[in-house]
This record gives sequence, C-alpha cells and structure tokens, in this order.
Amino acid sequence: VTSTATETKTSQPIGIFDSGVGGLTVVRAVAAMLPSENLVYLGDTARVPYGSKSADTVVRYSVLSTRFLLSHDVKMVLVACNTASAFAMTELRATLPVPVLGAIEPGAAAALAATKTGRIGVLGTLGTVRSEAYPKALRALAGRDVEVMAKACPLLVPLADEGWIDDPVAEAIARRYLTELHAEAPSLDVLLLGCTHYPLLSRMLGRVASQIWAHPVTLVDSAGAMAAAAKAELQRLHLMHESASGTLSTYVTDDARIDEVGSRFLGRPLGSVTRVDL
Amino acid sequence: VTSTATETKTSQPIGIFDSGVGGLTVVRAVAAMLPSENLVYLGDTARVPYGSKSADTVVRYSVLSTRFLLSHDVKMVLVACNTASAFAMTELRATLPVPVLGAIEPGAAAALAATKTGRIGVLGTLGTVRSEAYPKALRALAGRDVEVMAKACPLLVPLADEGWIDDPVAEAIARRYLTELHAEAPSLDVLLLGCTHYPLLSRMLGRVASQIWAHPVTLVDSAGAMAAAAKAELQRLHLMHESASGTLSTYVTDDARIDEVGSRFLGRPLGSVTRVDL
Repeated sequence: VTSTATETKTSQPIGIFDSGVGGLTVVRAVAAMLPSENLVYLGDTARVPYGSKSADTVVRYSVLSTRFLLSHDVKMVLVACNTASAFAMTELRATLPVPVLGAIEPGAAAALAATKTGRIGVLGTLGTVRSEAYPKALRALAGRDVEVMAKACPLLVPLADEGWIDDPVAEAIARRYLTELHAEAPSLDVLLLGCTHYPLLSRMLGRVASQIWAHPVTLVDSAGAMAAAAKAELQRLHLMHESASGTLSTYVTDDARIDEVGSRFLGRPLGSVTRVDL
Repeated sequence: VTSTATETKTSQPIGIFDSGVGGLTVVRAVAAMLPSENLVYLGDTARVPYGSKSADTVVRYSVLSTRFLLSHDVKMVLVACNTASAFAMTELRATLPVPVLGAIEPGAAAALAATKTGRIGVLGTLGTVRSEAYPKALRALAGRDVEVMAKACPLLVPLADEGWIDDPVAEAIARRYLTELHAEAPSLDVLLLGCTHYPLLSRMLGRVASQIWAHPVTLVDSAGAMAAAAKAELQRLHLMHESASGTLSTYVTDDARIDEVGSRFLGRPLGSVTRVDL
C-alpha cells in the first residue's frame, strides 16, 4: 500500500492574501502573536480595490490569488481582505486543500465580546456592506439578540492610502459617515472596523466617535482577532511552528507604490517585495 | 489578383476605451460633436483604477481592452483614460490596425490655445503625473517657452465616484491640492483637467481656483478636445458617418455600480450595459 498523503510540516508558511497593501495590518498582528511562523503575503495590487466590485469579480480574483499562495506550499490561508472574506469564503473553503480563515468571523466574535448593549456598528467597503456578511455572522454567533447597523465608507480607503490620517479632511469625512451611522444607531457601543485599511485611522475614528456618541464606544478591528483565530486553529491542528524567528516573503501583482504605502500599513520597513503576474 | 484589404466603412463604430466610467465624459463630448457616429464604449471597471498602478500593468490592461474594441470592428480607437494615454500610446499605436487618439495631445493643444502667460498647471492621477506625458506634449506642441507644473490629486477620483461634488469636503480636498500647486506655480493661467473624472468637479474646482489665484484661471478638459480631434481625423480620412443618429453600445468588465455611477458621468441614463470578461 502506498500512501500519497504528505504530512503537513509546522515549518510550512502561513499564506496571507489581501486585495492590496491593507492586509499588512494583519501581517503585523500575526507576526506579533505568532513570531515563529513563516509568512507569505500576496497583495493583489494590480486589481485593487475589491471593495467597489461585484461578488463574482471578487471571487475570481480571490481564487487566482490563493492559488498563488498554495504554490508556496502554505499550511493555512488567511483571507485578510474583508471584501474577499465577505464574498469568497464559501468558494475558497470548498476548493482549497488547507484550512482557510477569513476576517468576518473573528471580527464578529471580537465585537460580540466587546459589546454590552448588543448594538454594533460595522464600517466597511460597499461590497462588504452589500454582502451583509457581518450582520449574518454576528447574528449566527450571538446566541442572543443583536442589532447590527453597517455603513459603507468608500472614501476611508483612499484616505489611508494617501496617508491623510490625523488630518482635518479625514476627520470631516469620518464625521459625515459616523453622523449618518449615529442617526441610525444612536445606542451602539461597538464600532467594528471591517476593512484592513481602517486600523490606520482608528485613533482618528475613535476621537470622532467620542464626539458623536454621548456614551463610550469601543473600536474593534479584525486584525488582532484574525491572528488569535489563526493561533487557535494551528494549536488545534498541531501545526504551530515553535522554532526561532519567522520570515516574511511579500508578493504583489503591481509594485507602483508598494514601498511608500506598504511600510505605513506594516508599521516597519517592508524589505524586499517580489512582483508576480497572476 | 485578389485583394484582401477590406475598405473601412463610415458606419463602423468608434471605439472608446477607459479604465472605468470616467470615460463616459468623453462619450458625452463625442456624441455631442459627432451625433451620427456609432460608439462602442469599454470601461475596464474590474481593474479600475489605473491611476495608481505601474506603467506595464496599465499597458497590459490597455492592450486587452483595445483588443476587445477591435473585435467590434471599430474604425478608430479613442483612449479616454489619461493614465492609459500617458503610458500606453506607443504600444497601442504600434499594434492596433486603426487610428488611435489619446487624451494627452488634444488636452495639451487646448491648454496651449487657452494660456496667455505660457504657464500651465496640470491635475492628474499619480501615474499621469509620474509619466510626465503632459509636460512633454506641451513642450513639443508649444513652439515657445512654456512652464508646466503637474499635481497629482489621487482623492479627486473617489470623490467624483461617490458624487461628493459641490460639497464642503470636496472643496477642502481641492483647496489643499490647489494651494500646494499655487505655491509652485503662482502665475499659471490655465488648469488642465488631466483625468476623465475631473469634468464632474470642474465647477467646484473653478470656484476654489478663483479663491486661490489672484488672477483669472481658465479650466480646460480634454474631453471636448478629444472629440474635436476625433472629428478632424475622421474628416481627414474620409471616415465621417453622415447618416441619422448614432448608437451607443456600452461594455464593462464589472457591473457593480455602473447604473448608479455611469449616468452621472454620461449626463443622461446609461441604457443597457453588457458585462464582459477580459
């Protein structure tokens, strides 16, 4: 009898996929929580953004991108992009031969852990909001009544890309979005940042939220929650890498602005980046 | 002797290509100036925007997109997208078997016709500015000394897409860009709107410019200039279509927001749109 199954090795990398550079906020959280893991990152910067595009375009690009990660022999795939997580998880889980974790469920679980009132606001791209992925996940996980109000914030991604962050124009844009959300959800106590770009804006968003809501509002982002979920899944599968320090290999489908913008999201210089055509 | 050459018919359509929906401002200008022409429009909305991407990515997508137009038997191709015009004209002119007109030269000629001081400001995407296509074209066409100062305005496209147009936030963003340009070019008397999205913002941009510059500043966009250039070229080649009213066939590579956003750029309802995968 010949067995063709090959055993997964703990030294195999974790693949992290994003539509662009925003997913480097997830790389940052994963590297902090799992410093021994080898990471392979792919940003689909030639086709970014996904947030304003249709479900089937997002699924098609997500399949292409995760296939590239598989060619790097990854032991697990993290879908950092919230829009890809909102539209493509069913397809990716059905077709990829490794565990796949998305942004939605970890983010939803973190929001539920943080809310006292059971009233949660979600900020995201047009696609993520249109998909209703967060409201569905929140209701499925809650085990109690939750009220969810999602707000599409399409201008926040270009603002973060430009680095207009602690900035009066960025504040004016955030104030408009959050004022509209407040009108719909005056009693929310958690704001879930449902896009990899938003952690860069979280200090500013928190300041504006504290001016708009009369009571404290907790900001939750899915980057830290995804890293914790990845760690739990690796432990469950006995796939944790325990040796010295892990490596990061970064791939992008377009490299026009990667050095300038990438380090802003990673929080440190990005190092070498390889461009690939998919 | 058998001739394989087929004669170009005046009823063949003009192909108009853009990275997304912005090129519908060019469709609007062409339809006004050449009402008998049949038009085939392709917006590469699945891969939009081009403005922040690298030259070779823009060339690759432009080749794919114009090949699609050729399959519709077009007699001429208009490259409405300024970023594609800035990066891909050499490749497209070398490979397409029909006349190809871009946005840069008509826009530059219109700016030169409008300037008295010979000092011209250009607003565009990161890619268009990085390419230096406008300064090169302006200097080549001028036959006299011109001073050109180009300013990348990456947030104007998402603002126009959102329809935040006559709007305090849009004004604040425009004021920042134009104040920075004024510091470099206090004596310009023409602002060339080097992106298909900017005509939607032109009234607001004109208002802000009149507050920043002490003297009158003329705004010029390339949509009208492209339509005039197309008309001249069709006359020169005896390819003008003279019959009744022309048709518009619209194709996009992603249709997520086309009905909502498209009519804003076209200035009237868009009618039926066909999605194609390239």
